[in-house]
Amino acid sequence: MADKKLVEQITSREEDFAQWYTDIVKKAELMDYASVKGFMVIKPAGYAIWENIQKELDRRFKETGVENVYMPLLIPESLLNKEAEHVEGFAPEVAWVTHGGLEPLQERLCIRPTSETLFCDFYSKDIHSYRDLPRVYNQWCSVVRWEKETRPFLRSREFLWQEGHTAHATAEDAQARTIQMLNVYADFCEEVLAIPVIKGQKTEKEKFAGAIATYTIEALMHDGKALQSGTSHNFGDGFAKAYDVTFADRDNQLKHVHQTSWGVSTRLIGGLIMVHGDDSGLVLPPRIAPTQVIVIPVAAHRPGVSEKAEELYTRLKGRFSAKLDNSDKSPGFKFAEAEMRGIPVRVEIGPKDMEVNKAVLVRRDTREKIEVSLDDLEEEVGKLLEVIQHDMLERARTFLNTHTYTASDYEEFKDIIENRPGFVKAMWCGDRACEDKIKEELAATSRCMPFEQEEIGKTCVCCGRPAKAMVIWGRAY
Amino acid sequence: MADKKLVEQITSREEDFAQWYTDIVKKAELMDYASVKGFMVIKPAGYAIWENIQKELDRRFKETGVENVYMPLLIPESLLNKEAEHVEGFAPEVAWVTHGGLEPLQERLCIRPTSETLFCDFYSKDIHSYRDLPRVYNQWCSVVRWEKETRPFLRSREFLWQEGHTAHATAEDAQARTIQMLNVYADFCEEVLAIPVIKGQKTEKEKFAGAIATYTIEALMHDGKALQSGTSHNFGDGFAKAYDVTFADRDNQLKHVHQTSWGVSTRLIGGLIMVHGDDSGLVLPPRIAPTQVIVIPVAAHRPGVSEKAEELYTRLKGRFSAKLDNSDKSPGFKFAEAEMRGIPVRVEIGPKDMEVNKAVLVRRDTREKIEVSLDDLEEEVGKLLEVIQHDMLERARTFLNTHTYTASDYEEFKDIIENRPGFVKAMWCGDRACEDKIKEELAATSRCMPFEQEEIGKTCVCCGRPAKAMVIWGRAY
Repeated sequence: MADKKLVEQITSREEDFAQWYTDIVKKAELMDYASVKGFMVIKPAGYAIWENIQKELDRRFKETGVENVYMPLLIPESLLNKEAEHVEGFAPEVAWVTHGGLEPLQERLCIRPTSETLFCDFYSKDIHSYRDLPRVYNQWCSVVRWEKETRPFLRSREFLWQEGHTAHATAEDAQARTIQMLNVYADFCEEVLAIPVIKGQKTEKEKFAGAIATYTIEALMHDGKALQSGTSHNFGDGFAKAYDVTFADRDNQLKHVHQTSWGVSTRLIGGLIMVHGDDSGLVLPPRIAPTQVIVIPVAAHRPGVSEKAEELYTRLKGRFSAKLDNSDKSPGFKFAEAEMRGIPVRVEIGPKDMEVNKAVLVRRDTREKIEVSLDDLEEEVGKLLEVIQHDMLERARTFLNTHTYTASDYEEFKDIIENRPGFVKAMWCGDRACEDKIKEELAATSRCMPFEQEEIGKTCVCCGRPAKAMVIWGRAY
Repeated sequence: MADKKLVEQITSREEDFAQWYTDIVKKAELMDYASVKGFMVIKPAGYAIWENIQKELDRRFKETGVENVYMPLLIPESLLNKEAEHVEGFAPEVAWVTHGGLEPLQERLCIRPTSETLFCDFYSKDIHSYRDLPRVYNQWCSVVRWEKETRPFLRSREFLWQEGHTAHATAEDAQARTIQMLNVYADFCEEVLAIPVIKGQKTEKEKFAGAIATYTIEALMHDGKALQSGTSHNFGDGFAKAYDVTFADRDNQLKHVHQTSWGVSTRLIGGLIMVHGDDSGLVLPPRIAPTQVIVIPVAAHRPGVSEKAEELYTRLKGRFSAKLDNSDKSPGFKFAEAEMRGIPVRVEIGPKDMEVNKAVLVRRDTREKIEVSLDDLEEEVGKLLEVIQHDMLERARTFLNTHTYTASDYEEFKDIIENRPGFVKAMWCGDRACEDKIKEELAATSRCMPFEQEEIGKTCVCCGRPAKAMVIWGRAY
């Protein structure tokens, strides 16, 4: 039934995944390219998803005691330079402001690529005593990183995100908060975005610039590539020492605080597209969909149909995020449009349905059609949305499981990476040289050392020396 | 009862209003200064007010059909330069990015001081037909203007705001939207912030760079100075012509769109402080207060008191934004702290209250104490919050009315401006020379030509020539 013209405009997912992705972000009207290379205009359909992500995450953050703040956009070069590893990691990719108004600045300022340095500067002045701890602050903002290659939502020179920055009295408290926030992210991804993730620790090579440990949630996209979907860092007292963030403890000793930071970004929108989307467009889980249900009249010119559609819409909008398409487009075009935008349920109502007091519910995820009595409309739509949310997570979980492989030697490892896109579990010796070799020869990286370790062998898949940990490997965005 | 130490730390409002203001923003922990001059750290107590402003306004916007989007942070110089008046107004105060990573940029980019140019650039590509109109977009973001003199919330080099940008098929639609959004702002200020405003049109001299008409809401601060609290601009088709934003109309003619923009900012937090605050700190209207009611136990060491306070808090937090202060500070210190933060109602509960099944409610705005039965606690707190909201608006309105004067000649005008801080109504000939003279001689500006015009004379208060309009004048932030 869906309109062919609209559908034919997108490339098939199996044929050219990258082009399919680009087609979707444009045709589902999620974003547009800005006049500055690598920057995005996030359009209403895309921004509404981000607003829902914000609302859900912000509530979960606040339940754990997070308070929101706002730090400045600009960082003086001297402030950025205080922590050696951090500046080395970020200085090559920041944008520099050199003039304010008509005057050159005495010191150049970079646009924040992340705000550790600003939070440290603030905490160094604002924290005095153990009574001031913990500080559990977060901000919602945009950051700029001058990337060379960019792709909408996945890697752009400016992106929207949240960055949490905390300060604690002890190393244990900092470690607990680091893991707590990783769990908030993982639960959010599974429960709301219907994206199952693997939780684990990054290797030394892959960790954040300045962290003592970085934890990550890794999701698997439909093309078998990994998407790092959120990270949580434990800084120990390294930043505190560089920025002199101290407090007087209960024992009257002056001590350095222990810090964490954690963030997710508009990248999650890219993940939603690549996990759930299909050849008809976006497929959104009900809990994140800006529009959960759309009412579309069929044969709207026939007496009473348009009015009935309006009536159903009025009933639904009290309980769900609902829309009515009573424009003069053809039903087929409206169906295709609703599918492209990923609306989880559409309600079709026509003269024949009305005769038998029924409507047809169509699931976006499976295309299944379900006749329901108009008497039970709200209840049936509510149940169906729950079923869709559940099924989408299960399908994504099945995909993840069936695309996670195990390799015990390099030949097997190479064969999987090159021929069977997905995650590969393999043992690792702990040496960066093996990661470097794998990256160079196979364009794959260590995604994480998962919390759920399995001893699938005793030797490193790359060098054959004794193994220290099981690593999930893969090609990644 | 309030702790003297904390209170004595702030300057009296009558003694030195500017210092009083600075003391409040610091002691109520609304903000802190950042390491870059003129930039702010907005702390949790300040940001929570901004979140409430956002939530209330965003809901009102969406009820009028507004959709949120996000435009890039950076504007290419060539794009900024397309509309002559606009660039003249903003170019002297923008921050320039000249390097991305290690490379100099081919064209320098400014950090958005406002986003008309970006929306125009986008609309020029995205709008094709009358079917695409109206576009009613808004974004929440920060902007940068390289101001010379800065003050927390009132004038800072970076501030948070929302900027709505709309495109319409006709001049009438654009004008209607301009006024509609001004009314949204005015209603929000009165109903939520308890700040009465005067609605009117800016003179040619005071209008926005590139607008054909700017409308404003002007509020009166406690020191008698005006605060421009929100503006709404009608651009006609001037920007559309400069940026080539056209559409095919129903008659198949290619026409330029008509545009508007409108914004309010974190400046409103400054307004809240200066309209309602007193010598004990902030006074927040219940509808915008992050914490509406705080429970403070008195003689908390006595048996059952602490538990009773906990119980009352649990009852209240379901219906209101409530806090419990069960720290080991003295009750006097807690009272002073709650007052400094402007919490509308505090609930005091001690052993004597418990004996008679009562608690004491203390209004922040009037210091009035009210004994209530514990049986009616939620109901009494709810009623009291409504009364406080109502009374705060009425007091502010009375202040506005009693500090609005009328002048019919220049001597009288000068006397009022110099000796009776407030708004002055006076007739004006429409000539910019008179505005320039008044500004130079009296440091006062035309705030607006109010929609509610009165003919208080027939000649200009400055030059004596025939008057064209009544203007509200005043010294302003």
